[in-house]
Amino acid sequence: MAVGQDKLPPLQAVSGVRLGTVSAGIKTPGRKDLVLIEAIADTRCAAVYTRNAFCAAPVIVAREHLQENGHRPRYLLVNTGNANAGTGAPGIAAARECTAAVAAQVGVASTDVLPFSTGVIGEPLPVDVLTAALPQAVATLSAEGWAAAAEGILTTDTRPKGLSVTFSVAGKEYVVTGIAKGAGMIRPNMATMLAYLATDAAVEQSLLQQLLGELVDTSFNRISIDGDTSTNDACVLLATGAAGNATITDRETPLYKALRDAVEEVCVTLAQGLVRDGEGASKFVSVQVNGGRDEQECLEVAFTIAHSPLVKTALFASDPNWGRLLAAIGRAGLEDLQVERVGVYLNEVLIAENGCRAASYTEEQGVAAMTPEDIVIRIELQRGAADATVWTSDFSYDYVRINAEYRT
Amino acid sequence: MAVGQDKLPPLQAVSGVRLGTVSAGIKTPGRKDLVLIEAIADTRCAAVYTRNAFCAAPVIVAREHLQENGHRPRYLLVNTGNANAGTGAPGIAAARECTAAVAAQVGVASTDVLPFSTGVIGEPLPVDVLTAALPQAVATLSAEGWAAAAEGILTTDTRPKGLSVTFSVAGKEYVVTGIAKGAGMIRPNMATMLAYLATDAAVEQSLLQQLLGELVDTSFNRISIDGDTSTNDACVLLATGAAGNATITDRETPLYKALRDAVEEVCVTLAQGLVRDGEGASKFVSVQVNGGRDEQECLEVAFTIAHSPLVKTALFASDPNWGRLLAAIGRAGLEDLQVERVGVYLNEVLIAENGCRAASYTEEQGVAAMTPEDIVIRIELQRGAADATVWTSDFSYDYVRINAEYRT
Repeated sequence: MAVGQDKLPPLQAVSGVRLGTVSAGIKTPGRKDLVLIEAIADTRCAAVYTRNAFCAAPVIVAREHLQENGHRPRYLLVNTGNANAGTGAPGIAAARECTAAVAAQVGVASTDVLPFSTGVIGEPLPVDVLTAALPQAVATLSAEGWAAAAEGILTTDTRPKGLSVTFSVAGKEYVVTGIAKGAGMIRPNMATMLAYLATDAAVEQSLLQQLLGELVDTSFNRISIDGDTSTNDACVLLATGAAGNATITDRETPLYKALRDAVEEVCVTLAQGLVRDGEGASKFVSVQVNGGRDEQECLEVAFTIAHSPLVKTALFASDPNWGRLLAAIGRAGLEDLQVERVGVYLNEVLIAENGCRAASYTEEQGVAAMTPEDIVIRIELQRGAADATVWTSDFSYDYVRINAEYRT
Repeated sequence: MAVGQDKLPPLQAVSGVRLGTVSAGIKTPGRKDLVLIEAIADTRCAAVYTRNAFCAAPVIVAREHLQENGHRPRYLLVNTGNANAGTGAPGIAAARECTAAVAAQVGVASTDVLPFSTGVIGEPLPVDVLTAALPQAVATLSAEGWAAAAEGILTTDTRPKGLSVTFSVAGKEYVVTGIAKGAGMIRPNMATMLAYLATDAAVEQSLLQQLLGELVDTSFNRISIDGDTSTNDACVLLATGAAGNATITDRETPLYKALRDAVEEVCVTLAQGLVRDGEGASKFVSVQVNGGRDEQECLEVAFTIAHSPLVKTALFASDPNWGRLLAAIGRAGLEDLQVERVGVYLNEVLIAENGCRAASYTEEQGVAAMTPEDIVIRIELQRGAADATVWTSDFSYDYVRINAEYRT
């Protein structure tokens, strides 16, 4: 199951970036499972990784290489079919071997290559199989390779996710293109959220990192399918500078603001795309919490709702179960919450107020509000000016089936 | 589904306590749905209630009455079929009417009666139906009424839960008897965990409250079926003093310690009984976390595992999925966690160490370890001397079915 339309929109080339996608046969013969992303020299790179203490070998190596190359990597190597996670010291060595093989192939330093893996956990990475496919990956490098790469990074996803946004500032045109994969926040077997974005704008690296950090926080960090966090999650933003602008160093410039808007649109669309393709998802749910004292408490309430198995099973059943929503809000840990002020809306229908079912509410309204695939749960706390939104999916039989049937 | 044996053990009378159970017809005609518990004058009472900010009307009224009667209530009135939650001011009035009706019937003050409700949320409590059954409830009051009451407080539970523990100190025999209901930590429709314990020992009230608070924390607060918290949860401990001992005022006496052990055994057994009867449960899982810096971080790890839908679906599938366990440990938020020190055991089989699958581990061992209904997941953090255990169940198709099919 998946929610909404599944067509990949046209993805625009980003000057300075080429992508190659091949079938190495890492797990399933014939499946596209290896993607090589090339960036021109001097491309700045920002990256955000999983916060899981058990981070996978490629995450450790990628972080290290990014330091060593001054945040100017030349190649990103992404394999599916094997997460190279829970593999200990041999896993680290395997990741290094792969980056060295790319380096030898294209004539850069090993540290210019960042490795990324997703797939089965705890199995040794088949380095030979992977490196044998590298010449072909290099041969297929193309500026038009985004759509193939969007397919090549998928694991149990049912559809590719990508978006391009263009913008003009001072008569010059820029582009941001991004692709992502992931159908649960984590599946440590066929694991991981991965996202790769690139722009042709030139941006100073520390500013690029700030930008990505902020926007990941309000996009990929605002989604929840099952509340779990992968060992391999990574989001990378490349800024090639091929557009020829003077390097952006200031947040207050129109170009920075336009770039920020474009990257935000790509991140939010990709993040929502992950939820729509969530494991067993039959609903796409926006949880908006308004009127909190600060953003943090809005997020507490929103995530408590988004993680509640009782709310999620009710969503699966299209059951306008306001009692489960009130109970989730009530246990979110907000200090001095005056429950009689809280309003709960389902697709703009007021379903609960004054700590009980709204007087105006009818069962017919509730059922009608639950019918669409896209549901907005809006909570009005009425105790401040902050707000926050997170996106989630429902809990279905298919979620249990997908996660119960998957064997180590 | 439910795990383990389902026979209620013989429950012993507690001198000073009588219980009456009848069918009032609150929701389902013919079903036992009303329980009246009577305690002799001067019985001390300790109570622990839900921390949910949206607490139900009976919780508000019971708290208030307990203050007013100096923690010496004479009657507890428990109805099923209707939670009187999410019912606003009319719900409070309804709870008061019920306690007033009991008071009039038996000749005590309204404030001597504590109300408890469990069942459908958001529906008006049918006060007339309930009070009409009170004379019969009074007529059935009996010291031998525990087993009937254990049945009478159930909602969607598949079996009654109860235990008696006796102990002797200085040649005198004492008893602790308890009953409980609940098959999810919450179901705001057919909601709630309720537990009622009584002893014939005389205990000073503030000490009794301390005792109950501590023991709830290491029993009912250590279980998780779905991570949700009801609006109606309550646990009550009555100490009638009918055994004739000098009132216990000191934690260091042998009698206090023996009482504590007995109440602990009842609380832990009842709490585990709730998990075994968890919605859709096919496994009973103890999550033991040892070697933490403090108890709090052990609990963080244990609950992160116990709440992880990925771990719970793997348990349902009898899949020894050590990757999901590592990932859950890794996201529990422990500072400076050295992942290479963490050991993971499944029913005494070492499955992961050094951040990866244990060298000694075989798939056959893992499958064998997952076969029993009772599973122990043991985590050795090796960074301190603290430990903690929580109990949980798996996530099955039945969990989704039970919670999706239930309509408001």
